Amino acid sequence: MYRSHNNGSLRASDINTEVTLSGWVQKSRNKGFMIWVDLRDRYGITQLIFDEERTPKNMMEQARTLGREFVIQVTGTVIERSSKNPNLPTGDVEILVSKLTILNKALTPPFTIEDETDGGEDVRMKYRYLDIRRNPVKNSLIFRHKVAMEVRKYLSNQDFIEVETPYLIKSTPEGARDFVVPSRMNQGQFYALPQSPQTFKQLLMVGGMDKYFQIVKCFRDEDLRADRQPEFTQIDCEMAFVEQEDILNVFEGLTRHLLKEVNGVEIEKFPRMLYDDAMRRYGNDKPDIRFGMEFGELNDVAQHKEFNVFNNAELVVGIAVPGGNSYTRKEIDQLIDWVRRPQVGALGMVYARCNDDGSYKSSVDKFYDQDDLAKWAEVTGAKKGDLICVLSGDTNKVRAQLSALRMELATRLGLRDPKVFAPLWVIDFPLLELDEETGHYHAMHHPFTSPKPGQLELLATDPGAVKANAYDLVLNGNEIGGGSIRIHDKKTQALMFDYLGFTPEEAKAQFGFLMDAFQYGAPPHGGLAFGLDRLVAILGGQETIRDFIAFPKNNSGRDVMIDAPAAIDEEQLQELNLKLRK
Amino acid sequence: MYRSHNNGSLRASDINTEVTLSGWVQKSRNKGFMIWVDLRDRYGITQLIFDEERTPKNMMEQARTLGREFVIQVTGTVIERSSKNPNLPTGDVEILVSKLTILNKALTPPFTIEDETDGGEDVRMKYRYLDIRRNPVKNSLIFRHKVAMEVRKYLSNQDFIEVETPYLIKSTPEGARDFVVPSRMNQGQFYALPQSPQTFKQLLMVGGMDKYFQIVKCFRDEDLRADRQPEFTQIDCEMAFVEQEDILNVFEGLTRHLLKEVNGVEIEKFPRMLYDDAMRRYGNDKPDIRFGMEFGELNDVAQHKEFNVFNNAELVVGIAVPGGNSYTRKEIDQLIDWVRRPQVGALGMVYARCNDDGSYKSSVDKFYDQDDLAKWAEVTGAKKGDLICVLSGDTNKVRAQLSALRMELATRLGLRDPKVFAPLWVIDFPLLELDEETGHYHAMHHPFTSPKPGQLELLATDPGAVKANAYDLVLNGNEIGGGSIRIHDKKTQALMFDYLGFTPEEAKAQFGFLMDAFQYGAPPHGGLAFGLDRLVAILGGQETIRDFIAFPKNNSGRDVMIDAPAAIDEEQLQELNLKLRK
Repeated sequence: MYRSHNNGSLRASDINTEVTLSGWVQKSRNKGFMIWVDLRDRYGITQLIFDEERTPKNMMEQARTLGREFVIQVTGTVIERSSKNPNLPTGDVEILVSKLTILNKALTPPFTIEDETDGGEDVRMKYRYLDIRRNPVKNSLIFRHKVAMEVRKYLSNQDFIEVETPYLIKSTPEGARDFVVPSRMNQGQFYALPQSPQTFKQLLMVGGMDKYFQIVKCFRDEDLRADRQPEFTQIDCEMAFVEQEDILNVFEGLTRHLLKEVNGVEIEKFPRMLYDDAMRRYGNDKPDIRFGMEFGELNDVAQHKEFNVFNNAELVVGIAVPGGNSYTRKEIDQLIDWVRRPQVGALGMVYARCNDDGSYKSSVDKFYDQDDLAKWAEVTGAKKGDLICVLSGDTNKVRAQLSALRMELATRLGLRDPKVFAPLWVIDFPLLELDEETGHYHAMHHPFTSPKPGQLELLATDPGAVKANAYDLVLNGNEIGGGSIRIHDKKTQALMFDYLGFTPEEAKAQFGFLMDAFQYGAPPHGGLAFGLDRLVAILGGQETIRDFIAFPKNNSGRDVMIDAPAAIDEEQLQELNLKLRK
Repeated sequence: MYRSHNNGSLRASDINTEVTLSGWVQKSRNKGFMIWVDLRDRYGITQLIFDEERTPKNMMEQARTLGREFVIQVTGTVIERSSKNPNLPTGDVEILVSKLTILNKALTPPFTIEDETDGGEDVRMKYRYLDIRRNPVKNSLIFRHKVAMEVRKYLSNQDFIEVETPYLIKSTPEGARDFVVPSRMNQGQFYALPQSPQTFKQLLMVGGMDKYFQIVKCFRDEDLRADRQPEFTQIDCEMAFVEQEDILNVFEGLTRHLLKEVNGVEIEKFPRMLYDDAMRRYGNDKPDIRFGMEFGELNDVAQHKEFNVFNNAELVVGIAVPGGNSYTRKEIDQLIDWVRRPQVGALGMVYARCNDDGSYKSSVDKFYDQDDLAKWAEVTGAKKGDLICVLSGDTNKVRAQLSALRMELATRLGLRDPKVFAPLWVIDFPLLELDEETGHYHAMHHPFTSPKPGQLELLATDPGAVKANAYDLVLNGNEIGGGSIRIHDKKTQALMFDYLGFTPEEAKAQFGFLMDAFQYGAPPHGGLAFGLDRLVAILGGQETIRDFIAFPKNNSGRDVMIDAPAAIDEEQLQELNLKLRK
C-alpha cells in the first residue's frame, strides 16, 4: 500500500496518528538542522519535516538529496505545526517522517511546476505531462469532468439516452473537409471520421430513440484558425416530436443547470433575439450582451450631407464608447490604426467626442454641425464624456468591423467580466448563406435544416430571405451551441439537395440512406449540439480552450509531445494499396 | 406541441382528461364500425379507438388509411377500456380520438417491427433505423446507456476523473494493425487511430491525475473474427500509487456495483485464480466457473500402458460430463466428430462410460481395466451416470481443445445460465508469449507491463517463466477486463523494448515521449480496461455484442446501411498527396 491518506486530507484531528503518504516533492527548504519538504499530489500539499534531533542521520542525508519532482513515499506521525499556514487546508499539521523511500528520481523539469510557470507554450506542450501537474491545467481538466458529468446526469434524468454512433463512416465532400481513413479490407475505399454524428442522430430519431445525446469527438480537416482543434468534442443532442420551442426549453434548462451547479449562478429566463436584430444591433450573430455599446445606424442622420464617404456607403453605423472622451488624440489614432489592420479591414474611422459641457467635437466637423452630432449621440445612446466611433461601407463588412471594435473596446474597458454570465438565444437564422466567391448559396447550418413553414417557396425567388428553424445559444459572445428543426420528409430533403447543387445521383450516393429512412415513418425532429471545449472554457472563465483539453494539437495540427502525425512504414502503405505522390 | 404525454404513461387515474399523443402505428384492427390502433413510442403502447357512433365520418375514413409505421398525432379523451389488457401498463385505458393528424406516411417496412421479427441479419442491418424500433434492440441500447451511466457515477464518486485523450495519434507498428489517417497539413505523414489510450493514460499518471477513466472508442484494423468490431468501446482506467491489490479491489467494487444496480445480483467476493491454475483446471485463461467439469490430468494413471496414443502425448486430460452416460453411441460419435472439426482440431477422443452399477465401459477397454478407469473417474471427478471424455496431445493444443468441448457440452446441458453471474480474477499472467511461427517472444499484455519484482533477471534464461503483475477479470467465461501494473522507470522500459526486439532508435522514435516522461518523476501506476460492448452484452444476458451497438459493422468492416467505406474523390486524394496503387 503506497499511502494511507492523500496529501490534501490531513487535519488537526489527525494529530498523533501514523500515516503513509506518497507524492511529488514540490519544494524543499534545508536549514541544515531541519528540512521541510512540501509533498504534492492531485489533492493537495502536506508538509514533511526532518530534523537532526528526531530524524536518523542517514535519513537526514537522504532527505537532503530530494530534488524537485522526485516521487517519494513517507511514513510518519502527524504532528502540530509550530507555524501554521492558514492558506493550506493541511496547514495545521506536518509529518515527522520515520521512513522515507524514493520511488522515482526526477530530472529538473524544463519549467517550474507552479501556478505561474516560467514555461512558454511550446515547451509546455512538449512536456504536457508536466504541465498537467500545474494547478491551472489540472483544475481545468477536473472542471471539464465535472461539467461533463453534470450534462450526463441532467440529460439522463430527462430520459435522454446516450447512444454511441460510429467513428468510421462515409466521406461527404459537402461542408468542411473530412479526415479519411483508408480501408485495408476494402481496398481503394475510405472511411471518414465524422464532422458530427448528424445523420446518425437523425436515424436514431427515425428509429424511435426519442431523446438522444452523446458527448462525442468530431473531426474537421480545416486550416486551423487560432484556438481551433482538428478534433473537438460536442454534446450532441436530438429529440423527436418537438418544435423549436421544446428544444429551446430543454437546453436552456441544461445550461441553467450547469450555470447553477458549476458556477453557482442562477439565471431565470434566457433572452431571445432574432438573427436579423442581432446583426443590426451588434453586427454579429453571437453578441456579447454583458455590456451595451449597441450599434446606432446613422444613415438617416449622416448621409445627404457633403461627406461622400458616408453618402456612398451602404451602411453608416456607430457605437458610443463609455468615457471614451478621455482618450487622447494619440489613443484615438491607435484605435483608427487598430480598425485598419488587415484582420479588421476598415478603411478608416470617424469619431465624435461628447464633451462634458454638452458640445461635440468630431473628426468631420467640416461636414457636420452640433445639431447633426447631437443626433448621432441620440442614435448611438452616447452620453457626455463618451466617444462615438463611426464606420461605414458595405453592410456585412462594416458590421463585422464595428463588432470587432466593440469587442476590443469592451475588453479594454474591462466590460467582459468572466464571472458574469449572459446567455442569449439567437433565433430565426437564414436557411442559406451567399458564398461571395462563387455566388452560390449554401446551407448556413447544414442541408438537413428545415425552412420555416411556408417559406420553402421563397427559395426560387429570394433565397437569402428564407428563414430556418435554426437557433444558436450564445454565452458571453461565444456560440456555445447551435441547432435546428430538421427536414423529415424525403421530398423536402430532395428539394433542398437539388437547390444546394447536388445531382439526384450525388444526393442518393451520399445521403440515400437518410432519404430512404424518411420514407419509413420519420417523426418530426430537431436538435442541438454544444461545443464542449468552448462551453467548459467559458464556464471556467477562460477565453481559450487549450487548457481544457488534456493533449491539444498546435495550429499545424501536430501533437508536439508524441510527434504526430509521422511517416508510416512502406509496408503499411502497401497493405492499404496506397502510394505517396511525389 | 406534439404531445402532452408519451405512450407509456397513461393510467386509469387519467380517465376523462384530454391528451395529445404522437407515435407510430404499431398495428390497427378494423372491425368496420370500430377501429383500434396501437400507438407506439419508446415508452410504450397506447390504444386509440375510433368508432362510428362517436367519431366523425371523415376521421373514420382517415383512420382506415393508417398503415403500419405511419407517424401520427392524435388528440382525444382518455376513457376506460371495456376489455382491459393486464399485460400493458396502459392497458386499463384507451383514447377516444377527436383529432387525427398524419405526420408522416410510411412504406411497408421490409421486416416486421416486432420482438420476434421476420427480418434476417442482413436486412436488419441495412435498415438498422427500423431494427432499432424493435424492443430487443431498443432495450439493449437503453441498457447500455444505463451501464455506462452507472460506471461513470461509481468511478466519479471514487475520485476518478474522466479525461478525453486524443483520437489522432501516432502509428506504432507493434501490436495489432492501426487504422491510419493521412494528414493534409503535414503531407506524407499520418495520424493513427488509437488501439487504446494506453500511453496517454500513463502520461496522465506521470502528470499527477492520480485516478483516470474514460469510456472511449478504440480501433483495430484486424481481419474480423465473428463478433468483433473494427471500432469498439473501452472503459479505460488507470491509477497512480497502486499495487495490484488496490486495482483488483477498486474494479471488483465497480463490477459488484454494476451487478447489483443493473442486474440486482449481489456477489460478495470475487474468487481469484492463478493463470497457471486456470490453464491446468480449465484449459483456458478465461474459465466459465458457473459450472464444474474441471479438467483431470490423467498422465499418471493413463500413460505407461500399451496405449501409445496416450504414451506419446505430452498431456492426457479428461472431463466428466454430468449424466453423459445417457448419450447413445451415435451421440458420442457426433461429439467425436465435433472435436475433430478443424475449428477444434483434436485427432480423436477417448471416452469412458460410468455405469449406474459402478462399472465402466470405455472406448479403450483393450488397454485399460476397471481399476484404471476407476482412477480416471477419481481424477476427473466422474460419478455414476457420467461420461468421461479424454483428449491427448501437446499441452497447449489439447487444453484448448478440451476447453472448447467443455464449453460446448455445458451449453448443450444448459449449464451456462445467462441469469447466473460468476466473476473471477485470473492473475499472474506470463509477461511474454511465444509466437510459435517466429519463435520469438512478444508481450502477452503489452510492452508496458511490469514483470513481477525480481523476475526481470529470468528474461535472459527462461523468458516464458517470467510472470507479470497482469490480471484479467472474467465473467461467465468471457474476458471483460484486463490490465497490469506498468513499468514506470526508463531503464526497465528500455530493457523491455530491447528484449522485444526494438532497436534503441525504434524505441525512441515510437515511445521516446513515454521514456522521457519516466525521467521526470513517474509514480508507480497501473490500470485496467473493460471491453464495454462485451460487458454490456453479458450483463444483458446475451452472447453477442451486435445488438448492444447502435450501428455495428459487418464482418468485412462495412456499414451496410450507409454503405461505408466508399471511394473518395480524386481531388481528396490529391489534397492528401496520395495515389491508389493498381
